[in-house]
Amino acid sequence: MNSIDKLSELFEKFPGVGKRQAKRFVYFLLRKNSGYTKDLSDAILNIKKNIRLCEESFQFFYTERGGNLSPIASNPNRDDSKLMIVEKDSDLENIEKMGVYDGKYFVLGGSIPVLSKTPNEFIRETELLRLIEKKKDKIKEIVLAMSVNPQGENTLEYLRKILENFNIKISILGRGLSTGTELEYSDKDTFMSAFENRR
Amino acid sequence: MNSIDKLSELFEKFPGVGKRQAKRFVYFLLRKNSGYTKDLSDAILNIKKNIRLCEESFQFFYTERGGNLSPIASNPNRDDSKLMIVEKDSDLENIEKMGVYDGKYFVLGGSIPVLSKTPNEFIRETELLRLIEKKKDKIKEIVLAMSVNPQGENTLEYLRKILENFNIKISILGRGLSTGTELEYSDKDTFMSAFENRR
Amino acid sequence: MNSIDKLSELFEKFPGVGKRQAKRFVYFLLRKNSGYTKDLSDAILNIKKNIRLCEESFQFFYTERGGNLSPIASNPNRDDSKLMIVEKDSDLENIEKMGVYDGKYFVLGGSIPVLSKTPNEFIRETELLRLIEKKKDKIKEIVLAMSVNPQGENTLEYLRKILENFNIKISILGRGLSTGTELEYSDKDTFMSAFENRR
Amino acid sequence: MNSIDKLSELFEKFPGVGKRQAKRFVYFLLRKNSGYTKDLSDAILNIKKNIRLCEESFQFFYTERGGNLSPIASNPNRDDSKLMIVEKDSDLENIEKMGVYDGKYFVLGGSIPVLSKTPNEFIRETELLRLIEKKKDKIKEIVLAMSVNPQGENTLEYLRKILENFNIKISILGRGLSTGTELEYSDKDTFMSAFENRR
Repeated sequence: MNSIDKLSELFEKFPGVGKRQAKRFVYFLLRKNSGYTKDLSDAILNIKKNIRLCEESFQFFYTERGGNLSPIASNPNRDDSKLMIVEKDSDLENIEKMGVYDGKYFVLGGSIPVLSKTPNEFIRETELLRLIEKKKDKIKEIVLAMSVNPQGENTLEYLRKILENFNIKISILGRGLSTGTELEYSDKDTFMSAFENRR
Repeated sequence: MNSIDKLSELFEKFPGVGKRQAKRFVYFLLRKNSGYTKDLSDAILNIKKNIRLCEESFQFFYTERGGNLSPIASNPNRDDSKLMIVEKDSDLENIEKMGVYDGKYFVLGGSIPVLSKTPNEFIRETELLRLIEKKKDKIKEIVLAMSVNPQGENTLEYLRKILENFNIKISILGRGLSTGTELEYSDKDTFMSAFENRR
Repeated sequence: MNSIDKLSELFEKFPGVGKRQAKRFVYFLLRKNSGYTKDLSDAILNIKKNIRLCEESFQFFYTERGGNLSPIASNPNRDDSKLMIVEKDSDLENIEKMGVYDGKYFVLGGSIPVLSKTPNEFIRETELLRLIEKKKDKIKEIVLAMSVNPQGENTLEYLRKILENFNIKISILGRGLSTGTELEYSDKDTFMSAFENRR
Repeated sequence: MNSIDKLSELFEKFPGVGKRQAKRFVYFLLRKNSGYTKDLSDAILNIKKNIRLCEESFQFFYTERGGNLSPIASNPNRDDSKLMIVEKDSDLENIEKMGVYDGKYFVLGGSIPVLSKTPNEFIRETELLRLIEKKKDKIKEIVLAMSVNPQGENTLEYLRKILENFNIKISILGRGLSTGTELEYSDKDTFMSAFENRR
């Protein structure tokens, strides 16, 4: 196949990239000097080289010295008694940037579509259960931090069910008015939560 | 002045209506039959005729039999111990449509711009204080239901201050994740509230 | 019916106005003083009083001295040999604002939906034919100025057919690249016209 | 530097890609299997290998058998007497997809910012002049096919000036109403062109 079309097809698989933008990426690369394309090619080839998947939190992390734990997972100053379960690395990153949570994390690697018959294929279920089993004496609270949409709610429910036997407190992030919410347009679920959680 | 331009200018004062839309409204009316324009003209002229401003809640309400209290304010089944303060009629209406709140209301009639030097010009302060003074034996909780934006926050702060001497519990609607919030993009304030209000 | 709901329903008929905005208009009027609502009510009631429909061009025009012709139709300096047919008053107004056309107009009052079986119900067909019959010795060119969309194209075709027997030159506005057109995204029709009309 | 951040920075250079999307691309690649990242890395490294820049038209083209001319430039059935000058490969591609132009092309490689003092740095001026010099006996018309925006207009003017001595007809794509233009909102330039180009 034509190398322009081939590369274009590979770019089309990128999240949020359509046919047209994929083509623009290719023409962009054709116009760039070889130094840039070589750098990019190398960076992609080696992206996994110094990146590991933390064996506890399943966060991707960069390391040159090896090791199986991410900086957060191995940080003795992080509170072992709280475990926050997030869907993906970028959720974790956004939360870390805020600097307001001092516990540990577990990255599920996905969320469960509504009505799915094989929920465990979408998330790291075995790895999660293994981690909690191992740390169950330390963990006092598991915070389920899912986005507020049908798939997120479905994942919440599933997690509650598979975690209920651990005898650990399970919490979910509070619902209510978020930045920018206008009362005139707020939906019933949001208002009800906001009213119940009034303080 | 040309009557097309005159009416156009009056429509331009409507909320969210620009020059072009105002003109379209006028041409729309020119093409409509006289029955419709007569109806509209009468309805506007008489809009206040059977509409009263509730002397307790300051909600506009429709009545043919007179009376000074809105149906909600005069409803003996509504809980007198809770008073929710909202900015405007459409907020109240949205909340009523949900059917989840059974207390009373007070409509402020506006919100206070940040850095305003004359906050009481933007809201019905005297009327609010008079109502609370009169009902202070019944009211056990005042819920401040403001939108989550700088002007709303500013109004919240001002209300807390002017209400603090009543020795009545003041609460605000809870903050947290609202419908549609994606953790990857949530802001710090929202996440912090959601984390603190986890359950 | 409740007068708030009644006025709200009348506003919902306005072009581009939904349920929510209609309600906002009503609350806006309830908060305005009686001077403004009286003015508005009068302006609507009298919108047609000094407005006439030009008996030649069918443009609405304002007049205090009576007369059956719009300023443009009765202006001896406008070129009688060109007649531009437009769909609606706001098209005419936009073109006049540019100050580049010195001929006369006819306002069709609408456009013909594709596949319509009663095209003459949507436009002032009889009035148009009558005008051209009357002025056929003066008119040297009829310019069909329709928007470029299926309904506009359909109207064009219909007009060409009913006007072909007059032995007057019929032209349509040229097609090509318009302000903002990017070649990368231009459609085939536009490019073909632009190529054919290159100069 | 951390390899996640490094790759992220390289992606940020892509047209239309911001910080956040660049990060998503990286996490996307981290989750993909090595087969895909290897393919992508190779495709980027080799993007220029079988791609050549046509020495006449300066279009990028794919070839396994070598050769210095693109399929269009070397196609004996394409009309040598017309040369269309476009800004970039994707413009050419969009036009070819329509199948309505049978002449040759020249890809400028850019357009000239308004007020630029070094216009020839933004386009392949020397290469263009060389091509026209070489083909001046065959070329009967040069079509300047620029987008309709200030930068495109500026490029048009500059090209007209540097090409005026060749004694070849220079044309530009016609202006007028393009698909979707509504007369009510059309701008003066577009309407004037449409009126002048009426037919």
